[in-house]
Amino acid sequence: MTESELYQWLGEYGIQTPSYKVVGMTEDICVDFFPAVLKIQSPKVVHKSDVGGVILNLNSNEEIIKAREKMKKNIQEIHKIPLDDKDCFIITQMLNGEELYIGSAEDPVFGDVILFGKGGIYLELYKDICYIDSQAPEEEIERAFKTTKISKLFEGYRGSKHQMSEVIKLVKNVQKLLQTNPDIKELDINPLKLTQNGLIAVDARIRKDSSSTPSRSKPRQRPNFLDNQRIAIIGASTDKTKAGYVVAKNSIGFKGELFFINQKGGELFGKPLFKDISEIKGDIDTAVLAIPAKFVISTIKDLVKKNLKNLIVITAGFKESGHAEEEIEIGRLAREHNFNVLGPNCLGYFNNAQNLNLTFGTGNLKSGDLAFVSQSGAVLAALMDSANALNIGFSHIFSTGNAIDLESSDLITMLEKDPHCKNISLYLEGLSKGKELLENIRSCQKPIFLFKSGKSEEAAKAAFSHTGNLSGNYEMFAGLMKSLGVNIVDNIEALILKPLFRDSKEIAIVTNAGGPGTVLTDAIVSKGKKLYSLTPQNIEALNQVLPEHWSHNNPIDIIGDALADRYKASLDIIDTFQGVDFIYMLITPQDMTDPLGSVQILKQNPYKHKIIPILIGGDMVEEAKEFCRKNKILFFPSITEATSFL
Amino acid sequence: MTESELYQWLGEYGIQTPSYKVVGMTEDICVDFFPAVLKIQSPKVVHKSDVGGVILNLNSNEEIIKAREKMKKNIQEIHKIPLDDKDCFIITQMLNGEELYIGSAEDPVFGDVILFGKGGIYLELYKDICYIDSQAPEEEIERAFKTTKISKLFEGYRGSKHQMSEVIKLVKNVQKLLQTNPDIKELDINPLKLTQNGLIAVDARIRKDSSSTPSRSKPRQRPNFLDNQRIAIIGASTDKTKAGYVVAKNSIGFKGELFFINQKGGELFGKPLFKDISEIKGDIDTAVLAIPAKFVISTIKDLVKKNLKNLIVITAGFKESGHAEEEIEIGRLAREHNFNVLGPNCLGYFNNAQNLNLTFGTGNLKSGDLAFVSQSGAVLAALMDSANALNIGFSHIFSTGNAIDLESSDLITMLEKDPHCKNISLYLEGLSKGKELLENIRSCQKPIFLFKSGKSEEAAKAAFSHTGNLSGNYEMFAGLMKSLGVNIVDNIEALILKPLFRDSKEIAIVTNAGGPGTVLTDAIVSKGKKLYSLTPQNIEALNQVLPEHWSHNNPIDIIGDALADRYKASLDIIDTFQGVDFIYMLITPQDMTDPLGSVQILKQNPYKHKIIPILIGGDMVEEAKEFCRKNKILFFPSITEATSFL
Repeated sequence: MTESELYQWLGEYGIQTPSYKVVGMTEDICVDFFPAVLKIQSPKVVHKSDVGGVILNLNSNEEIIKAREKMKKNIQEIHKIPLDDKDCFIITQMLNGEELYIGSAEDPVFGDVILFGKGGIYLELYKDICYIDSQAPEEEIERAFKTTKISKLFEGYRGSKHQMSEVIKLVKNVQKLLQTNPDIKELDINPLKLTQNGLIAVDARIRKDSSSTPSRSKPRQRPNFLDNQRIAIIGASTDKTKAGYVVAKNSIGFKGELFFINQKGGELFGKPLFKDISEIKGDIDTAVLAIPAKFVISTIKDLVKKNLKNLIVITAGFKESGHAEEEIEIGRLAREHNFNVLGPNCLGYFNNAQNLNLTFGTGNLKSGDLAFVSQSGAVLAALMDSANALNIGFSHIFSTGNAIDLESSDLITMLEKDPHCKNISLYLEGLSKGKELLENIRSCQKPIFLFKSGKSEEAAKAAFSHTGNLSGNYEMFAGLMKSLGVNIVDNIEALILKPLFRDSKEIAIVTNAGGPGTVLTDAIVSKGKKLYSLTPQNIEALNQVLPEHWSHNNPIDIIGDALADRYKASLDIIDTFQGVDFIYMLITPQDMTDPLGSVQILKQNPYKHKIIPILIGGDMVEEAKEFCRKNKILFFPSITEATSFL
Repeated sequence: MTESELYQWLGEYGIQTPSYKVVGMTEDICVDFFPAVLKIQSPKVVHKSDVGGVILNLNSNEEIIKAREKMKKNIQEIHKIPLDDKDCFIITQMLNGEELYIGSAEDPVFGDVILFGKGGIYLELYKDICYIDSQAPEEEIERAFKTTKISKLFEGYRGSKHQMSEVIKLVKNVQKLLQTNPDIKELDINPLKLTQNGLIAVDARIRKDSSSTPSRSKPRQRPNFLDNQRIAIIGASTDKTKAGYVVAKNSIGFKGELFFINQKGGELFGKPLFKDISEIKGDIDTAVLAIPAKFVISTIKDLVKKNLKNLIVITAGFKESGHAEEEIEIGRLAREHNFNVLGPNCLGYFNNAQNLNLTFGTGNLKSGDLAFVSQSGAVLAALMDSANALNIGFSHIFSTGNAIDLESSDLITMLEKDPHCKNISLYLEGLSKGKELLENIRSCQKPIFLFKSGKSEEAAKAAFSHTGNLSGNYEMFAGLMKSLGVNIVDNIEALILKPLFRDSKEIAIVTNAGGPGTVLTDAIVSKGKKLYSLTPQNIEALNQVLPEHWSHNNPIDIIGDALADRYKASLDIIDTFQGVDFIYMLITPQDMTDPLGSVQILKQNPYKHKIIPILIGGDMVEEAKEFCRKNKILFFPSITEATSFL
């Protein structure tokens, strides 16, 4: 494409380019944009600059005409390239302004993704760019762009008159261009100049490839995974060391019909152990497999005769152990007979509303409104156990394991419709259906919390070795998720803690020490949360119960000699403050401190607000920690832990 | 200053400026730098651009001459400003290149500080700048500059030919300029262009102020605080709720002479309680005051008669309670009689080599090589207690409290000379003698670890309310500390943990689960540490004891069904690997896991390497945690905590 063809083509999609005019060998020149650049446009000239085919900084039509003569002479006489009537010249306007960048790349996971941000040598140096899905609506484009620092130029920074709408319009135009030209694998508009007349594409390169993008399989009409009536646990075992024992034990509270199958026969938890699936009369809508891998395929073939809708394959020993074909066969059967598969190599499934625990994790699961989807069984097992200790409940738990059929994206769509789930937490390692994940998150109205492992190259390598999924470029992944409004957390515990505090904005601190109070304040502010500001009335109320030199400020420093009674008197008052979302109760062991007595208040006096003790120190606070553990009082042993989920 | 005077002045300090020539009203013009700019230089013209007094982009001497004529006509005829023979013009070279910035500001804490980095509109947007002390040697300048991204332009980024030495030379020249001109309060060289000929100052502004910089009090020849022979504890008390009781109790292991004083008389820990200082025969080189604030001044007056060298004022109730004058008087007495003061309002002092615990914190202090200096008594008390639980020892502890005399900077100099101290950790809230701190850290050969609270505005406000010290601009503070090679930590626990691991670079992970192993890997890499790479021999050795599908990679995933014996077999082998600095033992509770048995290995089998269990989960790992606590095995309950000190 010549430069003029490129400009015309970009113009067709509404993308602004510099003023230009193509003129012939002797044609009269009369342009009105200066300073201008003159360039040769001829198929005979490949590297224009090498033959004097570019002249910059021309300030009048006369200068341009003189420059054309000089250029013709140069090319023909010095470089011996004969020009004829088919050759021409392009005059373009030279533009001043900030160098930005917009481009796109076809990502193996997410398909076409647009990159937008600071260009020039700073593109790589500052990496001040954002990632935007090629299908992203305006709201998402804006959210993505606002993660860049350069976006401030569109928000009045240093008197800048540029509007966010200019960016959105350009991105929409690039999206249109990509949709119209599916053969474009890479687009690189660079430089993109931010001028007084808006964003102008000065140059562009494209890489086309007619090999078609792998077509997405049409999402099938799945049976509803959340509706289970007749459940069979294949491999239910009397051997306590087997997963099949634990799943059977966890399952027995289920209100529907439950069948245990084990070829050895016998009885388990007062129920018969059927030797074969065929012994069960009627359909089996849901089956859990906890049997050796080699029996899985044949068992599935028996189950489809029972109108199987949902299959949970706990059994390991597939892709992760070098047996990928067997797992591909499970997927094939699932599509052929239209049943859902969770796993294989997974920890199972929990649905609180049905009192249905089909996991081999802890049987102590509390009722809650958080749905947790995890690609790692071990992370899930640990967080289920932690949640139990922290008194946090779940509405659903899904362990996706090798995710040969149901992926996080499918589960989000199911959970979106389930009224028992209010928040969704995802632990992701890798994924294959990226575009589907984006779409399903986009359609989901519920808050989503996400942790992705495999951020670093080293970790991606480790993740690959144990799940076999593509980990992908973390920057792009995180950028796309942020554009969708997903809450990305930076530690796994936050997946269960952050949903509890998602609407918390203003925090009160009651502390017996100024230093740690300051440290906690820094930690809170660094997470973008605020300290509640005490009103004169608040201060007056606290004056009644606190010694003269209390801080008169939040952190509410009740002084180093505070015993439990002073903590209690303060909390009684702070609990009445309007606008406080929750309260940190910071206890530092000093010679007068009573850590145990201070946390005991929380058992005896239930407050309106969540009150979270932070017990820093060692042996001097151990008894108090023990009390919190026993009484399921959420507490933290350090300021780092106490704020890591904010 | 006119532009030519400015250029000449900068040139005197070796700072490069653009080529320029000053020409008269009619003088012949013959310059050899193009493109050039012509500007009027006349005291009658204040705003040059407003009267057509600046013409850009001149490409020949003829063009410049024409431009001068046009400019003269414009100024005299249109703007009616008569010019005469005293007026002249300056021709300067127009420069292309990256816009950088160098400047200086006089900070109330640190004095003259140089700022250097990316300039133009990006100065504020990207804040890619570093802070350099006006006295910084080359090594410090380089270390500071390397914290910026723009520094890559001097390290061959994208073929750049620029050298780090250009930067160092410029900064040294700016330092010289500031030293020669102490009346400069602010310097602003902007833009500073990075051209093919190096760094060139295109424009500069200065703000002078003849008010002299507050002169620094000459550091006095202090008595040696670390040498205590005859110690008196004034306010030693039989009342167990009093600090005076705890200090006396903690002190009794001291090998030198120890006197307890309490006006009530009697006996304590088998020693007489003297009613008055005068009853003690001979000198008292060190005194601890744990008496009400109102008796402090008179007691000090009695003590100076005993040739007091060191005073530790535990007593609170001074500046922090609105009684600043009393504390100023203590400082005055200290200077008059040349004794050191630690405090007031402090937790005391510990010197392991003398078996001397003069704190009212825990009496359980272990022997170690870490000196800990804290401005917060509560943070110190908590970390002393944590250190005890984590089996970490100290060489010295100083609680500086209100720091009216001895500040962290003085203590660094003392500790530098003490052979028992190998690492120094500082918890700082604010400081006043900034330049002294920089100098003393610069002279200190020992690794320094530092946490500063009051990073955020909110926290600085809280810190002010409880210590009364200036918190200052955290960015500048952190920048200067980094330039000195100080290890800045981001959580208080790291002050005691990071020194233990300061030389650790390569880490091995043994885990029973891939997912958490990946999360731990990400956390390690994000802290700039590395995973040890297994050699073929290492893999072969592990093959002998591990099941077929172990990860064959570090993280060494020994598979979910690992019991204690498999952890032990793995650790026995990993412990022999050359190049591993320490080992994380990640234990995630799964159905087959034996957390307690797994950590018990660490008691029975002492390994060469530090092995740190990470026990994630809740009740399922509680017994194992309890075992670690009882047996003083350093462990962590989460990946966040386990890596927060790296």
